[in-house]
This record gives sequence, C-alpha cells and structure tokens, in this order.
Amino acid sequence: MREIHRAETGDTLKVGLLGGSMGSGRVMLLDSQCLELDLTLDQPPPPKLPLTLVLALPRPKVLNRVLASATSLGVARIYLINAWKVEKSYWKSPRMSEANLLEQRILGLEQARDTILPELHFRRLFRPFAEDELPGLTQDTVALVGHPGSSVPCPRQSTGPITLAVGPEGGWIEAELASLQAAGFRPVDLGPRILRTETAVAALVGRLF
Amino acid sequence: MREIHRAETGDTLKVGLLGGSMGSGRVMLLDSQCLELDLTLDQPPPPKLPLTLVLALPRPKVLNRVLASATSLGVARIYLINAWKVEKSYWKSPRMSEANLLEQRILGLEQARDTILPELHFRRLFRPFAEDELPGLTQDTVALVGHPGSSVPCPRQSTGPITLAVGPEGGWIEAELASLQAAGFRPVDLGPRILRTETAVAALVGRLF
Repeated sequence: MREIHRAETGDTLKVGLLGGSMGSGRVMLLDSQCLELDLTLDQPPPPKLPLTLVLALPRPKVLNRVLASATSLGVARIYLINAWKVEKSYWKSPRMSEANLLEQRILGLEQARDTILPELHFRRLFRPFAEDELPGLTQDTVALVGHPGSSVPCPRQSTGPITLAVGPEGGWIEAELASLQAAGFRPVDLGPRILRTETAVAALVGRLF
Repeated sequence: MREIHRAETGDTLKVGLLGGSMGSGRVMLLDSQCLELDLTLDQPPPPKLPLTLVLALPRPKVLNRVLASATSLGVARIYLINAWKVEKSYWKSPRMSEANLLEQRILGLEQARDTILPELHFRRLFRPFAEDELPGLTQDTVALVGHPGSSVPCPRQSTGPITLAVGPEGGWIEAELASLQAAGFRPVDLGPRILRTETAVAALVGRLF
C-alpha cells in the first residue's frame, strides 16, 4: 500500500473482497504494522467469461504466467491436465504448491480488478479424464482444441459457453487429438504461427469473446 | 541443438535463415564445437500482420515478454515510446541493450517459425512523436488506442492495416489521450478488465486479425 500505491491516511483506494464485492476503502490508519480501511463494498465483480480452459500442464515458469493471465482475462474454470509431451518433473515443481497457485491467480484478480478466483482442477491421467469427464464438460458448449496446422481458423465472437483445450509445447500427439475429438472437440488454429501457451490463450480469448 | 532438439547426425530439422527463407537442414556433422547442416531453404516465412504497435515503454521484465510475444504474433513494426506514467529508469535498463532487444525478438521468431525481425523504433519524447510522426503513421490505417473504460468495444476482424497504441501500467493521461486522438486514434477497450501489456497485446491481435 505504501510502496506501490503511495497511500496515505485519508486516501480512497479501489478495493475488492476476495470472493465478494468490490468498492472503495478509505484509509483510516496506515503505519508499518497496520492498515485500517473504511470499506464500501457495493459493486459486483466483473462477469466471468463462460470459458473452461483445458490446459496441458505447462512448464513451471509458463504456468505462473498463464494462471495470472487467464485469471485476468476472466476465464471461469481451468483444468491442468497431463499429456504425452508434458514432462513429469512439471508435476513436482514447487510452483505447483497450493500457495503459489493461489498467489498467481490473486495476481490475475488484482490486475483485472476482479474478486472471484477461477476454479482450478488437476488431472494427472489424460485418458480417464478425456474419456470419462470431458464428454460431460463439453456438452452444450462449443469445444475447440488449439492445433496449429489444423487449417480450420478459430471461430470468432461466441456468446455461448466454450471449452478450449490448449496443448503442451510440441503439441498434442495424434492419440490425444483423437481422444479430444471423440470428446467433442474441433481442432482449430490461429494461422501458421506457433505461439507460447500464454500468448495463445490470450489471443484465443480475444478472438472468441 | 543437442540438448533441446536432441539432434543427431542424419536428422532433418526445420530451419530458417534470419532475414531470409525457411526450409530444412540435414545434420551432416554435430559435435561439441561444430554443427554442419545441409540446407534446403525453399519456403517463405509466414506473412506479417499489417500491424504497427505503438507501445508505452513497459517495465523491463514485461518489455522482454512483450517483444517476444508481439514478434511471435507477427507484428510488423513496434514503436516503444515515452508516456507520463513510464518510469524514467525503464529507459536505462540493461534490457534496453541492442543485444537483448535482438535476443527477445529472435526468441519470438523461433517460437513462431518466422525469420523476419519486426522493425523496432524508440521515441523518448512523446509530444513531438505524437504531433509530427503519428499522423503520418496512422494515415490509411485503422488507428486504435487501448483505453480501458472507453466503453467502445475494440472492433473485430480487420483486413487492412492497423495502428494500435497500448498505454503504460496505469494508463495514458488525458493530455496523451487527446494527442493520440488528434493524431487519428480512436479509444477502444476489451471490457471492464485491465490487462497486463503482453496479455492485452495478444488479446487485441487475436481479436483484430
């Protein structure tokens, strides 16, 4: 508060309650140990996008960025899943700690002025997830899987719910793509360029909503 | 080559010549000191987007990411400019070295499989740039300035050339916005959420092209 916002007693700051409403807070007291705010929380957070993101677990550095960025974009729900080209070590990274996963999403909320965390789920086994869960998840949604080279341009401006699957660096293998297609996903791309996960997610969201 | 691609003699790799064509390279010799490739460069790089990005200089960490990401997306030309809320120290960062600015763009080219560097220009004085240069740059283009809260949604699917201005963290000040509007820019936004520079750029590009 003091370093970043250079707040002083009497200032009014934009604030939000994690999981709750947003509004303003008047600084009543601020010293090195204590902040007292007089809160007026009378505004709803911005609506989420009706978007479920199914993401092959990216490498830890990218994971941080994509969690913060997807949260800031308003993604409602994120599944981090395994895939053939996801390195096993990624699942054991310290960045997979509850604390870090929460921190990255809170950074995204702070950035976008939102208060509602996106749901975050993990599935370490691709096949049971694709066969048993995905058909239910994609039901009544437009289900798209990013697949550079598919030659089908990603559609634009959807208003209904979307399930979007984004693969690992190196892409999905054929068997995974077949499973995803069996679960209702349509392969689409953004042209000939292969993008990093967080760039692809932002570009796809910008295009779809 | 050996660590990332695990290449061995006889393998064929996708390659591109910086500033030139793309194709394949057959590994003729590979040891700790030397790589010899038999090149076939018979394909053009992917086309650039007809997009000039005018970016308030972001803080150094973000600069790296946005340069790589904008390059991977195919942005043709980037102007990094000053703005009221750009901290002076950003201009003196070691990341502003020629070597780093080149490296980040090459990372973007490698990611997207492209060979043509985007043009990169610096303008440390906002006003002369906005008054003397921008009107010429925006001429015959759709000129948009990202301005959260403008309530005008960013248009979609443009085929012609675009000039896109993206402000600093904290946004443009009113005087800057007025100068940009005088130079032909129309303020647009992506909804109520405020995004980090690299997320905003990717979302805007996904939406516009």
